Amino acid sequence: MSETANIRKNYNEFIEYVKELSDISRANEFLEWDMETYMPKGAAESKGFVQSTISGIAHEKFTSERMKKYLESFPTENDGSFTPEEWTNIRETRREYEKSVKIPIDLVKEISKTRSLATSDWHKAKNEGNFKLFSPWLEKWVDIEEREAEYLGYENEPYDALLDNFEPYTLTKDIEGVLRNLKNELKPMIKAVINSDMKIRTDFLYSPYKADKQMFMVKKIAEKMGFDFTRGRIDMSEHPFTTGYVFDTRFTVKIRENNLPFSIFAGMHEAGHALYQQGLNEKWDRTPMGEPVSMGIHESQSRLWENIVGRSREFWEYFYPSLRETFPKQLKNVDIDEFHSAINRSEPSLIRVEADELTYNMHIILRFEMERALLNHEIEAKEAEEVWNEKMQEYMGISPDNASKGILQDIHWAQGYFGYFPTYSLGNLYSSQLYNAASKDIDDLKGSIGIGDLGVLRTWLKDNIHSKGKMFSAGELCENVTGEKLKASYFVNYLQEKYGKIYGI
Amino acid sequence: MSETANIRKNYNEFIEYVKELSDISRANEFLEWDMETYMPKGAAESKGFVQSTISGIAHEKFTSERMKKYLESFPTENDGSFTPEEWTNIRETRREYEKSVKIPIDLVKEISKTRSLATSDWHKAKNEGNFKLFSPWLEKWVDIEEREAEYLGYENEPYDALLDNFEPYTLTKDIEGVLRNLKNELKPMIKAVINSDMKIRTDFLYSPYKADKQMFMVKKIAEKMGFDFTRGRIDMSEHPFTTGYVFDTRFTVKIRENNLPFSIFAGMHEAGHALYQQGLNEKWDRTPMGEPVSMGIHESQSRLWENIVGRSREFWEYFYPSLRETFPKQLKNVDIDEFHSAINRSEPSLIRVEADELTYNMHIILRFEMERALLNHEIEAKEAEEVWNEKMQEYMGISPDNASKGILQDIHWAQGYFGYFPTYSLGNLYSSQLYNAASKDIDDLKGSIGIGDLGVLRTWLKDNIHSKGKMFSAGELCENVTGEKLKASYFVNYLQEKYGKIYGI
Repeated sequence: MSETANIRKNYNEFIEYVKELSDISRANEFLEWDMETYMPKGAAESKGFVQSTISGIAHEKFTSERMKKYLESFPTENDGSFTPEEWTNIRETRREYEKSVKIPIDLVKEISKTRSLATSDWHKAKNEGNFKLFSPWLEKWVDIEEREAEYLGYENEPYDALLDNFEPYTLTKDIEGVLRNLKNELKPMIKAVINSDMKIRTDFLYSPYKADKQMFMVKKIAEKMGFDFTRGRIDMSEHPFTTGYVFDTRFTVKIRENNLPFSIFAGMHEAGHALYQQGLNEKWDRTPMGEPVSMGIHESQSRLWENIVGRSREFWEYFYPSLRETFPKQLKNVDIDEFHSAINRSEPSLIRVEADELTYNMHIILRFEMERALLNHEIEAKEAEEVWNEKMQEYMGISPDNASKGILQDIHWAQGYFGYFPTYSLGNLYSSQLYNAASKDIDDLKGSIGIGDLGVLRTWLKDNIHSKGKMFSAGELCENVTGEKLKASYFVNYLQEKYGKIYGI
Repeated sequence: MSETANIRKNYNEFIEYVKELSDISRANEFLEWDMETYMPKGAAESKGFVQSTISGIAHEKFTSERMKKYLESFPTENDGSFTPEEWTNIRETRREYEKSVKIPIDLVKEISKTRSLATSDWHKAKNEGNFKLFSPWLEKWVDIEEREAEYLGYENEPYDALLDNFEPYTLTKDIEGVLRNLKNELKPMIKAVINSDMKIRTDFLYSPYKADKQMFMVKKIAEKMGFDFTRGRIDMSEHPFTTGYVFDTRFTVKIRENNLPFSIFAGMHEAGHALYQQGLNEKWDRTPMGEPVSMGIHESQSRLWENIVGRSREFWEYFYPSLRETFPKQLKNVDIDEFHSAINRSEPSLIRVEADELTYNMHIILRFEMERALLNHEIEAKEAEEVWNEKMQEYMGISPDNASKGILQDIHWAQGYFGYFPTYSLGNLYSSQLYNAASKDIDDLKGSIGIGDLGVLRTWLKDNIHSKGKMFSAGELCENVTGEKLKASYFVNYLQEKYGKIYGI
């Protein structure tokens, strides 16, 4: 066999193997979907066995001698033997493989055990509002994450290795300056909103809204956004989430009868994630080329639809009449401007997941700064509650009287997900920068949205982002599409314009 | 290590491996459940890839060197090293393993390919009512099944090997006499019903019944039967089916708005299957000791609840008032006796799945006789339509004017499931013999059913059948529980008593 033929044969066998690995992961992702939606409670333990068996097989096959041989047979750089798409599959599989084999099995087990024990104590500590009960686990996680970072290797500081687990190819220094700029811009805006004497009425958002009618609106909006029900579905679960791939994307919503914006915006958020999955390149399904690029870019899609589109005046120009028709009593005396102001009301608050668009990123910046400082031993785990409360006071002018509304509010640190939080802010920043680029490419985008033509934006996102799979890193994709590196100013301008109008500041 | 310790260690490793294999199968069974219930249509092909990958892994692991070594390390008979439950796990795993490795991979592939092509042509042939289009496939299947039987080995005739795939440890000669007796008894009864001048009104069963109210009744009855919703659920699908295991049993129903008995009795049928799954011994979950014994015994559970209980006068003494309350208009002028007669009306008909209790087994006996005659070369595939029509005429006094209502009605022969049909009749026969034993053990069983206390029967079935797993073969289980080998007379007596009353014959 000629060398070329041999390379081809090798690649073909490799990619078949990659596809099988993808199938195995899908079996497990699907079990998770069921666990959150339809599984009877009594089945939880037995499903855990299935998941654990399937994960074990996936890990064994991924780190096998067979995979090693395939990867060793490929060059370190694309020497022209592979198309860019094929090379993406090799590069990304190699990246994951190398990360997997760097972590010793003992550390994997320690992580898994710590996750289980720490989460259990976190629940207790949160219930009691007792940080002391949890702080030894935070210390433990700092120790584990440091060791993990050492095994993985990093460019400048240990945090690089952890961030890379969630936002590949992105360094701490790439985002540190951007988030600092964002913080400096947000501070005065938040203060201005606090000091504004604008009174925004929101009571009508919290009167009773029937669940089936809320679901009807969620589905109607998702359909208009371009969600394809022949390749996906919407269900209910305790916590909204999105899962799946191009041919089967499922998202969930939770309906609260006395909270209309919760279902509408969580629905649009998940639908934004879902459109990313449905926009992936089906030709490359079951390979990295058919997978999303990063958590940050994924979050940019959800936030773009939820916030930039979903909380815009123009979006409701089209949808408010049908919302009002669906809920004639509740919205009888509410005009579109009152509604638009209400869904954009801003107020510093303690709980991240309930924060508005303006204050949300302060919650993330606080966590990012603390994670990094913990890893760099600038602060110790046991003083973390104090640091938390001081930062809250500084950034938002409020601080919790109880750790359960402060440092203990999120599960992430109990599960050891250091490096995850920044992807939320990256999502916000990317969303504005990408939307800005879309506005330049698309004639009168606002006008299209105002007449309910969301397809034009969806197509742009599909062409420029979704269909690219993992071809480029998040940073490269941003530069390719927007002509610039990620920066804070697009998001800041967007907030200034919106809140300037609403609050007259 | 002592020999005993070594045996223990080996068994423990073996059983862990068996449990992992069970987990893998569950992942796939669950995918199938989703495909029939909630999967968006566009996902079908991609789910096929997942299923095929998971099946491949299951097969590879089951027929591995590792499994071979475990099985070779165990004695051929239980020498006292193992409890009866442990020995069941060894015996049944060995049985499956030996069957798996006997069939060459080429034949496995040929079967799979033939199944796909023959099924496709069967659809076409059925649509056209053209048996000639399908008869070459029937011939092909006879050839394949003969070869399969040769590989598997058999006691007296090739059909033994095929029957054993669905009803383990049961020989053709064990059922041949029983089914012949049944046929001889059924013939005059069917004739008597045809000649009876009893007019039974059934029109009210087919007036419109709202879907959600039908579902309400199905759930109410299932709950009373003892179906545990914390370990199971009920959904809708095109064809009703049951799947799962002791901790997660799911069944489906199909609702036809103009056919009340369809949902009620298909619901009770599937709930009967489901109670078997939920009654399995949870201590032995993920091993053969926690699995059902055979198709025939499984079917006995569904038929017992659907027919013996569900079509009895006493059952409706309790449920008819609430059925009437649910559908006051439709059942306004129908008293319980009219209702009971209507749901038991008998009439020879061409389509097996629509047949009543009295005539149903004639459909099976016909198929059993033909399968066996084809395998023994007493008839040829190309004359099968003629033989079919003659037998229909002889057994039921009617014959189809079109193959789509005759020999082409069922998909089973297109898929090569020879040996499957008899398990339906075994189910009917076992159901009566088992119910008769329950009636002796339980004081006033009919009285209990009449006041809606179905738990006493459910407990008896669980204790005597469900919880036994695969400890005994179907035949042994029958003898243990009823004191006798399977025979036709219990079922015949049951039919004679019921139809004697209703038709006055």
